[in-house]
Formats: sequence, structure tokens, C-alpha cells
Amino acid sequence: MLPKGVTFSERFNGINGSAIRAIFKVLNKPNMISFAGGNPSNDALPNDVCAELAREALLSDGKRILQYGATEGYPPFLESLLAHLRSQFAFPVEPANLLPLSGSTQGIDLLCKTLTNPGDTILVESPTFLGNMQTLRVYQQKLVPVPSDENGVLLDALEALVQQTHPKMLYIIPTFQNPTGRTLAADRREPIAKMAEKYGFLVVEDDPYRDLRYAGQALPPIKTYDHSGHVVYMGSFSKVISPGMRVGYMVAHEEIVQKCAIGKQGSDLHTATLTQAIVDLYLRRNLLAPHIQAILPGYRDKLNAMLAALETFPAGTQYTRPEGGLFIFVTLPESLNAGELFQKAVERGVAFVPGTSFFPDGGHENTLRLNFSNSTLEQIHTGMTILRELFTI
Amino acid sequence: MLPKGVTFSERFNGINGSAIRAIFKVLNKPNMISFAGGNPSNDALPNDVCAELAREALLSDGKRILQYGATEGYPPFLESLLAHLRSQFAFPVEPANLLPLSGSTQGIDLLCKTLTNPGDTILVESPTFLGNMQTLRVYQQKLVPVPSDENGVLLDALEALVQQTHPKMLYIIPTFQNPTGRTLAADRREPIAKMAEKYGFLVVEDDPYRDLRYAGQALPPIKTYDHSGHVVYMGSFSKVISPGMRVGYMVAHEEIVQKCAIGKQGSDLHTATLTQAIVDLYLRRNLLAPHIQAILPGYRDKLNAMLAALETFPAGTQYTRPEGGLFIFVTLPESLNAGELFQKAVERGVAFVPGTSFFPDGGHENTLRLNFSNSTLEQIHTGMTILRELFTI
Repeated sequence: MLPKGVTFSERFNGINGSAIRAIFKVLNKPNMISFAGGNPSNDALPNDVCAELAREALLSDGKRILQYGATEGYPPFLESLLAHLRSQFAFPVEPANLLPLSGSTQGIDLLCKTLTNPGDTILVESPTFLGNMQTLRVYQQKLVPVPSDENGVLLDALEALVQQTHPKMLYIIPTFQNPTGRTLAADRREPIAKMAEKYGFLVVEDDPYRDLRYAGQALPPIKTYDHSGHVVYMGSFSKVISPGMRVGYMVAHEEIVQKCAIGKQGSDLHTATLTQAIVDLYLRRNLLAPHIQAILPGYRDKLNAMLAALETFPAGTQYTRPEGGLFIFVTLPESLNAGELFQKAVERGVAFVPGTSFFPDGGHENTLRLNFSNSTLEQIHTGMTILRELFTI
Repeated sequence: MLPKGVTFSERFNGINGSAIRAIFKVLNKPNMISFAGGNPSNDALPNDVCAELAREALLSDGKRILQYGATEGYPPFLESLLAHLRSQFAFPVEPANLLPLSGSTQGIDLLCKTLTNPGDTILVESPTFLGNMQTLRVYQQKLVPVPSDENGVLLDALEALVQQTHPKMLYIIPTFQNPTGRTLAADRREPIAKMAEKYGFLVVEDDPYRDLRYAGQALPPIKTYDHSGHVVYMGSFSKVISPGMRVGYMVAHEEIVQKCAIGKQGSDLHTATLTQAIVDLYLRRNLLAPHIQAILPGYRDKLNAMLAALETFPAGTQYTRPEGGLFIFVTLPESLNAGELFQKAVERGVAFVPGTSFFPDGGHENTLRLNFSNSTLEQIHTGMTILRELFTI
């Protein structure tokens, strides 16, 4: 019971925490095979390298690293991040367009804080990442799902919704989307940037998975086609170096960056400088590209193993076939309920995330998200065998 | 100019960033003597020790440190923090009462997010820490100053304001307050906890400076007298280990902690695990107490040097005489304007913070805040000589 006279804010009405993070707490059972998280493989986390980089950074620039830093970021990191972005992308980036984030998650919070009022409309993919949906809901945004197919959001439907709802933003994960793993088609990217300019809304392009590509060719970010400042690009080192370090960034119009920096002053003042310094050395020493090349084959094998297992599932089971990322999205025959199956699966030592939580309007009880990156091939084989049995009507 | 159709949120009307952080940008002039920040001395930042601890943590528990962590904190850190708090304080702390924060700054943001609605009243000391005032304003809180004397807020005035305004919270820095350096008297602490229980408001006790005591006896936190869950205690390792690591914590009623953890999911998901791990080892190896003992004499000398210089200032200059912390607050004769003097001082190579920004209602143009911790004794001597000349009418 809350202390006398204390009440929670209206913005937290109905907010009960991310379903995924609640599921994590169920997973402490030993030997649980978890397809539930969005975690990189432990094998892919370069802790020995980071140990040496952390030590080196603290010995060589330790006073600056341990002292208060600028909200706008640790200068060496800004420098190497800028060089990295310029080598990766065709869109222009100046220092004034960059803001380091404590994970790209923080970007959504800051954009909501600085740009939205309660009751504004945000267009989202359906399904989409539930953690960020929760943040949008805390800011009392009206979430409107945009219809999509296997190549991402449908442009005609998007434009109709824009005309109808006058949204503040479109929140979109264009590459290896969470939870579906699907990628927005190349020929839908420029039109979305143009639409944002024409109608005056922001595109928040959340792109943490793009480097985890196991097949096919990389596509330019939507931001590439932005000539008016309507696209905010968010990247992260969580999936390719370490999520525990909480280092991401935003590339945006200068005034948006300035306002988000003011919001960040009150959020965490600045991202921990030590983790910025480790990522700086990682980039500066050109360790990132070889590290990614080293981890891709293992992830590719796991994805393929899970897809091969799904091929043997009963007729009527549909699933996405991603070219990268961490997730496969499964649609079971309509008579099956993934929430009920989740309980049974956990009893048998396998976990996943029921899909309903990823849909802005709920429903879709016959869907689920599978993560393959954080299991061994053997666990994938064993776990998928159990799920196949459970999913057989 | 903002992109077409994009507007900032109403909550950011009139929010222009912390005056202190703006001042920081002026300080890049070489040889500037800065009494402006709230920075620990670089000498007090244990970067060599942290270099070894960081390396060791990443070699021994690196997979867990680099992987996603729980919003509720890195388990070894929670364990050593709990032991630390139990050894320091008489109030009971259970794991469910603890939430690690990315600096105690984040605590204000999370408490506002989860507990306040726009238009709520927050009682604050006058003057008080301007960074947190900005956060309260972003959450559209009505700030009401509580009259105080050299021993902190006046109880009768506080109770009258509570009856009159029905506040949601009292935000208070009871020990070596920012910006005044003054400490809430021992006999005012229990009555504040009792008042919170009686009237049903929260006391947010922000206590980052308490370990920096150069004279006198430590006083129990207000939280010591809390038997109803109305006091939220916030501590930080920023002033005694490193602000750049961004590690603080909240001790609060279990349900408040749970709700703040949900808010933190959308803020930064969790505090960087590596910095939690470094603080964990710092506490676990009993390095904190000797480190504090080692840094206190230097800080004491600096405080005394600044106070000695102030004794030679023209008659009519008043100032606080803190027993600890980082700041002295100066009140000049009414005819002087600290904002104008700031410009002249910066031209002569000395910086401070004009006091007006610390007052919820502005005014007090003849006041200023001086920081002594981040200057050498020689810089204090030189800088104070310049200020004495400037402050002479």
C-alpha cells in the first residue's frame, strides 16, 4: 500500500512495465532455453578487449573520464562516431547533429519529452517494439498502427493515415524489425522521407540491428533521403558491442539535438563517460568491422537452424524469414493461443514472447516472437523440438 | 529554423537549459580560474584504481557486465550497496527499497514522471539546486519556495505552506546544500518526517554531499525518522568517487521503487553495468572510507582558504560558513549586480555562478555561488583577490 496521500501520476495509469522484462524474471529456472530476450550472444560480447580498453582509457584520460562531462558527449567519442557515421552513410552529419544517448531507448524518451504533448498521435508499425510503445504511452501519445506487408509499412495506407490523423511522428524500425525481423523495402524509403517533408511530421528511424545482416545487401537508411530535417536517425552499439554499456546516439536536425540535450540534462546529465570512451577506442582502433565479421557467421547459423526447425512445424504455421537481426515472428493457426502455450512451454523449459504485446491494439493471440541469438545450436534444436510438439494441434 | 510542421512540446516553453552548463561553455579560455562548477577536484578522482577495477570486473564477470542487465541493478552492486547503507544509516533498507540511478539527478526525473501531474506543487528551498528546478519545471510543477535561515527551512513556515498549497513533494538538500553549503539543523529533521506523514506529502531528500564533512558531527538523514514511507532518500557516488560514472541510488517505499523502475525502463533501461561494477568493487574492497579520508584534508584546506579570503572582502559582504560540501554562497551589498560582475570577472579570468538562477522566483541579483573544490590553493588566492577588487564598491 502506498504511503498516505501519495498517488501515482495520471500518465502511469495502466502502465505496468514491459512484458518482456517481466518474462525475464520467470527465466531464472536453471537450464531454461530462452528464445524470449533480445540479447546478443554472450560469445559475441568482447569483454577481454573491453577490459583492456577500459584500463587504457582510465590510465590515459582518466581524470576527464571520471569528471563531469558535457551532455553533448565525450569529445573523442564524438570525433570517432562522426568519422564512423560518415564512412557508413551517405547523409551529411555535422557535430551539431549528434547526441550520444544512454542506449537508443533514451532517444524515444527525449523526443517525446521535447516534442510531444499529451494526446498527440504517433504512427507505429504493427507489431512494433513494445518497450518503446510503453514509453510513448507514458507520454500519453495516441498510437495508431500503420498496415504493412512483408516489406514493411504500406505507403498508401501510411499517407492516408497521415492525412487523417496529422501525426507528430512515425516511429519505425526499418531494418530487421523488432519483433518481425522484416526489412522496409528499398523503394519505400525515399517516399517516407518525402512524405514527412510534405506533411510536416517527424520520422523516428530506430536502426539498432542494421549491422547484423546475414544475407542480402545493406539498404540506405530513410535518413539518406532527408533534405528537410524531418528524419531523426537513432543508432546503437548495443547489438554489436554491448548492451550493458548503454551507448547509442541520435542524428537529427540541430535544433532538435539542442532541445534533446536540455532534456537529457535532467535525465542523466550525460551518458557515462567510461562507456563512451570504450566505444571510442573500439571505433578508433578499427575493431568494430572485424568484430562484426567475426560474430555474423555464428548468428547466421543460429537463424538458419531456427528457420530449418520451423520448416518442420505443422502446416498452418507461418513465420518471417529475416535476412538479419535477432528475431523471427511466428503466426500459429488461429485456434492456438500463444499466451497459454507460453505457460506450457516454460514448464517444459522453453521461453518465448507472446506476440500480442507487440501490437498497439493487442489481439493476435496466435503470434509469438522467437529470438535465436542468445541460444546455442543445440538449445535451438532442443527448444524448437519442444515447441513443435506444443504447437501441434 | 525547425523543420516545417515540427514544434516543441508545451512542457519546454521557457526551458532554455541549465545556466551552469551554459556557463561551462564560457570556461574554455585557458587559465580560467573557475569557481563556477560543482566538480570534485581532479586530484580526488581515483582513475588508477578505477582502471584496475574496471579491467578486473570485465575479466571476471564481463559477459554479465556487457549483456543487458536488470533495470533494478547489477546484483553484486545491489549487495554491496545494501551493506554500505546498513553500515552508514539507522533506517532500514531492504533490496525492494533500492533502485540504482544514473546519477541521483535521474531520481528527480523518475519521481516527477511517476508521481506528479502538471500543475502539482513542489516545495523547494530558496535558493536550491537549479538543475533539479529545471527538471521540476519540465514536468510543469509549481515551485513554491520555503523560507529558511542559516539552519535550513523554517518549520513553521513549512507547515503553513503545506496547509496552504497541499504539495506533492518537498525537495530538500539537507546537508551542505547546493548552492548555500548550509546544513539542516538536527532538531528540524524529525519534524519534517512527521509533517510528511501527517499531511501526506513526499520528502525527496537529496544527499550527495554528506560524506564531504570537514568539521562537526554527521547528522542523521531525515529518512531516519520516516516510519510511513514518505521520505525518498537519494544518494550518489558522484562527489566521492566519480561524477562521470553516473552512479547514484534511491531508497524509497517499495511501490515507489517499482514504479520508478518502470519509468527507468523507458529512460535508459538500466544504469551502465560497468560503472555499477566499479562502484561495487570499490565498496566491496572497503576502498571508499579510506579514499574519503584521503580527500577530505585537501577540500578542508580549500574551503578554509576561500573563507579566509572572504574575511578580507569589503564590509557588507555576507557569506555562508559551511562545515562541508563544495559551495559557499555570497551575498553582496544590494547595490552590486552579480550578473554584471560575472562578465567582468570572466574578462579577468575568474568565473562563478550568479545566484539569481538558484532562486525559484529569481531576484537576489546581489548573490553568487562559489565552488572551492576544483581549484588549487593558489588559484583560490589569485581568484579571490581579483573578486575582492571587483566587489569593492
